[in-house]
Amino acid sequence: MEKITPKTLSGFMELLPKEQILFNKVTEIIKSNYEKFGFLPLDTPIIESSDVLLAKAGGDTEKQIYSVINGDLKEEKSKLSMRFDLTVPLAKYVTLYYPQLTFPFRRYQIGKVYRGERAQKGRFREFYQADIDIIGNEELSLINDAEIPSIIYNIFKELAFGEFVININNRKIMKGLFESLLLQEKSADILRTIDKLEKIGKEKIEIILKDDFNLSTKDIDFILNFANMSGTSAEKLQNLKNLNIENETYKTGVNELESVVENMRKLGVPEKNFNINLTITRGLDYYTGTVYETFLTAHKNLGSICSGGRYDNLADYYTNKKLPGVGISIGLTRLFDQILENNLLAEEKNSITKVLIVPMIENYEVCLNLASTLRKANINTEIYLEQTKFKNKLSYANKLDIPYVIIVGEDEVSGGYYTFKNMQTSEQQQLTLSQILDIFNK
Amino acid sequence: MEKITPKTLSGFMELLPKEQILFNKVTEIIKSNYEKFGFLPLDTPIIESSDVLLAKAGGDTEKQIYSVINGDLKEEKSKLSMRFDLTVPLAKYVTLYYPQLTFPFRRYQIGKVYRGERAQKGRFREFYQADIDIIGNEELSLINDAEIPSIIYNIFKELAFGEFVININNRKIMKGLFESLLLQEKSADILRTIDKLEKIGKEKIEIILKDDFNLSTKDIDFILNFANMSGTSAEKLQNLKNLNIENETYKTGVNELESVVENMRKLGVPEKNFNINLTITRGLDYYTGTVYETFLTAHKNLGSICSGGRYDNLADYYTNKKLPGVGISIGLTRLFDQILENNLLAEEKNSITKVLIVPMIENYEVCLNLASTLRKANINTEIYLEQTKFKNKLSYANKLDIPYVIIVGEDEVSGGYYTFKNMQTSEQQQLTLSQILDIFNK
Repeated sequence: MEKITPKTLSGFMELLPKEQILFNKVTEIIKSNYEKFGFLPLDTPIIESSDVLLAKAGGDTEKQIYSVINGDLKEEKSKLSMRFDLTVPLAKYVTLYYPQLTFPFRRYQIGKVYRGERAQKGRFREFYQADIDIIGNEELSLINDAEIPSIIYNIFKELAFGEFVININNRKIMKGLFESLLLQEKSADILRTIDKLEKIGKEKIEIILKDDFNLSTKDIDFILNFANMSGTSAEKLQNLKNLNIENETYKTGVNELESVVENMRKLGVPEKNFNINLTITRGLDYYTGTVYETFLTAHKNLGSICSGGRYDNLADYYTNKKLPGVGISIGLTRLFDQILENNLLAEEKNSITKVLIVPMIENYEVCLNLASTLRKANINTEIYLEQTKFKNKLSYANKLDIPYVIIVGEDEVSGGYYTFKNMQTSEQQQLTLSQILDIFNK
Repeated sequence: MEKITPKTLSGFMELLPKEQILFNKVTEIIKSNYEKFGFLPLDTPIIESSDVLLAKAGGDTEKQIYSVINGDLKEEKSKLSMRFDLTVPLAKYVTLYYPQLTFPFRRYQIGKVYRGERAQKGRFREFYQADIDIIGNEELSLINDAEIPSIIYNIFKELAFGEFVININNRKIMKGLFESLLLQEKSADILRTIDKLEKIGKEKIEIILKDDFNLSTKDIDFILNFANMSGTSAEKLQNLKNLNIENETYKTGVNELESVVENMRKLGVPEKNFNINLTITRGLDYYTGTVYETFLTAHKNLGSICSGGRYDNLADYYTNKKLPGVGISIGLTRLFDQILENNLLAEEKNSITKVLIVPMIENYEVCLNLASTLRKANINTEIYLEQTKFKNKLSYANKLDIPYVIIVGEDEVSGGYYTFKNMQTSEQQQLTLSQILDIFNK
């Protein structure tokens, strides 16, 4: 028989079992925190009608879309597409099931999305996003904007891979500032440029603002000093007020930011874990108020590991209903890739199985019964069922990091006990069933 | 702005939040049982190289494959495909990572697969499979064939949607029987025909066996009586032996079946939950020994809800290594569709959120602190953050089946207590924080 050489496509993460166990732990921490804050689970299809999926897309996004064709049904190339994020499917979902949903609608979705990017290090063509959004019907109170970062704080604290800072800003501040400088027409482009401050540096930004946008040196200095404002959150908020900029959008932005920061504190986010950063604006025009980016202090080069913000209209390309919302997305696959590469999570022994039963007798009855009893006590239990040397059986437990082994031989059966071995310490004890159960229950 | 009408494609399951919570519960029961028996998690890509995915496929399967194209990268139509099951990806995975895996390799995978079937009731184009397989290196002991149905028994017992029977057979029995009747050349076709006995009835099977396969009336009678053998498992096994069929394949099959049944009993599967059924053969030539199908007693029309068996070679289209295995697959989406349609799971109130805090004061500080405290105690807690009437806030809890509401107004704050409302009984109590925590911890 001619053999095909198996391979996995580049840009598609595929993990070994130990890595997968770790990935699932990270996912579980994210999921349980989302649920702790009252978010409902959602699982929309990976394939959607292209019309629906591309209602708002354009430019680079559209180029990266994977189209799907079924040979048999002879569907046209452009009829079906794979989702490229979880936001458009949410917009579709909320519009479609609007009458059956309860608002504010709080949902989380953790799922794979697809982008046909050229494969390169750290770029994935299939990757998980872990999103939460709170969608209001016509309106949504500002206090939700403070709850989102408090969830992020809880997640990254529990994940415990080092110091992190949630950067927070409000797009209305810069927008109002530009209006006051009579630069409102260029405002979106200037914002996009300033968003790159950390990435490309001050000098390059100055050149772009001068050459491409024709700004005066005075305006450039003012804008960049403004964006780079230093101090504590309280000092920055005070500075923003002291500037006495007479523009309503600006004032609203400052007030919103102050209120969000105040409520974040009340929700238990410590001062050291957030930072008012006037340079972040989240490129997309989609966002209209609060915006967030999250950085690991020791790994700023990773970029933002968790971003989002407030938007006025979730689904204006589907519906006339006003559906304001606030949300955030964790790029789980990219984050996990970095966790592995930088060893951000202590490489503890990770096994799901708690105990391996090693039969040393012909008749497996005692072993099978023991396994059933342990499983009924919710102890993940495996029996080594193959005929091989004792050494190989123990080696199996070692390779899989299974913490305990129970040896069942003639002596054990006639003596009415089990030999219980701690694989970490190599300590062996002769124990009864109830003593074994006590060890796992303590 | 021109609106696009949102829709979800037919053949793609998309659930409302309450249904999704139930779906996730079912999935969690399957997952935790798979883990209880020592299976490792796996998550392979949904898109694979077409060469790899279609190495073994052909006929109907190939026609149903979804191809994937990235407009920008101008990939050829047939280069990328979406997986149509979880077995081929497993074969790829085991071959590719063979040196890094520990054998016997026990893995579970719960994931979406894709088949471009014509949309019709109960048929899905995107659906979840929940698979387990145990893969041996060169060999795999028969006792694994008994463990698989004991896992299935534990899952369906815990899911508790009615009586179920795991049908079990061994393909060697029929194969040996046909050899003894000198019908071995037609054996695969006859087996496929007999597999349809329950579906199309005895008369039609007789006609097919006579007209298409040219069998004598005597042989047809013998085969059909054999397939329809009645009695308990013990009686059937005795009957199979009493026939004194002198064929080694047959004898091996009977001995294997006897051993598997004996070990299933030792693993705690009650007699009423399994049945030797000589008609089931699982169509595919892939299976070589034990085969399983599982039926709900009150819903036989659903067909088998969980099927699988033993195979000699997991990956002979990729490798010369002998990788025997045994596994089973639950068609989760189709099963859940039937659960919903037939109301197989009692419609209990399903909410993930345990308590809704309803602020009746301007200053949310007390509410935000309370929420943080409850969440730290692992109680899923939501705050109603919008400004609206009290009635609407309670109605939100009702609609989402949130079991408890904590009301925080001026009286509560000045009195140092909370009004704790049980939404099921409408009972209201004035409680302190520690009394509330006690209620959730008991």
